[in-house]
Amino acid sequence: MKIAVILAGSGVFDGSEIHEATLTLLALDQAGVQYQCMAPNIAQSANVNHLNNESLSTPRNVFEESARIARGDILDLKDAKVADYDAVIIPGGFGVALNLCDFALKGSDCQVDKQVEDLILGFYQERKVIGAMCIAPALIAKVLGKEDVLVSIGNDEGTADAIEACGAIHENCAVDEILVDEANRVVTTPAYMLATGPAEAWSGIEKLVKKVINF
Amino acid sequence: MKIAVILAGSGVFDGSEIHEATLTLLALDQAGVQYQCMAPNIAQSANVNHLNNESLSTPRNVFEESARIARGDILDLKDAKVADYDAVIIPGGFGVALNLCDFALKGSDCQVDKQVEDLILGFYQERKVIGAMCIAPALIAKVLGKEDVLVSIGNDEGTADAIEACGAIHENCAVDEILVDEANRVVTTPAYMLATGPAEAWSGIEKLVKKVINF
Repeated sequence: MKIAVILAGSGVFDGSEIHEATLTLLALDQAGVQYQCMAPNIAQSANVNHLNNESLSTPRNVFEESARIARGDILDLKDAKVADYDAVIIPGGFGVALNLCDFALKGSDCQVDKQVEDLILGFYQERKVIGAMCIAPALIAKVLGKEDVLVSIGNDEGTADAIEACGAIHENCAVDEILVDEANRVVTTPAYMLATGPAEAWSGIEKLVKKVINF
Repeated sequence: MKIAVILAGSGVFDGSEIHEATLTLLALDQAGVQYQCMAPNIAQSANVNHLNNESLSTPRNVFEESARIARGDILDLKDAKVADYDAVIIPGGFGVALNLCDFALKGSDCQVDKQVEDLILGFYQERKVIGAMCIAPALIAKVLGKEDVLVSIGNDEGTADAIEACGAIHENCAVDEILVDEANRVVTTPAYMLATGPAEAWSGIEKLVKKVINF
């Protein structure tokens, strides 16, 4: 078994949320399941100083920064083939809603990066399981809204409304729980949309990974 | 109880090892122990593209990059007071041996950042526990070599020799074990000096954190 993990940079405010990504890899490794991190080779749409939320003066690249979380072992998303994986998991972080799509700026009117959209649709069409946490379920909502996909980002009303405007169905979910769309084979959990620290994030992420593996 | 966690940037090749830092925070949070991440506000001595190990053209700052792992909640190391903490833990990554000291370049002849050295000596003099993983025990060896401190970075002979040249004593240690210096109150574990993935790293890091808390 091998799982694709899509990253969006490295850092909660402009990339993948570092704890969520790391804990996803921990849960996969503890289950004895192989994984491959991957990211699109594109410029970050925002570059944020994590001390003060100000813009950085120099641009960064999603693929290069994601390589930090992956310890250098990362695949350019354009080279990823659905046939090589049994499922896909997308950790959260603002980078998902800034780099992989622009949901953070445009809500339900957002556009999804074409390579990312094609890959997610590929997993969906092959009936392979899709896991998403934190804000990443909004990306899934945009890609699979017309399939009435059921997802959760926790209980934030504004975000839930924007997800439903994509055509998806939102249901509230506790930080230590997962929401399962049996028909569409999608698993989501709020992670740092609700978590106050890594232990709470881990409680939902571990469940999500186990369900993705054992769907 | 509150633990200081010293970071050295964000990324295994020029900063703190992201998995080790995250798993340290997970273990502390799961134990119900508060933590405060901190880092020196200095330029990184190396800036490495994690895709290919080439140098980045733009410099980065240790404090700013460390803030990514800490989700923005990070203290300038110069403002850290030993009295506010019960113990200190230093995750690994090349940044520890490039930014906090220059052990990666100069081995036992390395110099330690003055603020970092003073803080570690402060914890030592107050008999507060010091935890270090991966390459970070080399930093402890340089600061506390004259105290015959006992540490482990796993089983790499070259690194162990350089640690002993600092005056410290090196003993081999398995990835899922910890080495405890009872007299000096220092706990070390190899983490990614030996780990093949996050699950192996976690096996030693969780033990280290539990020992630091319950010394």
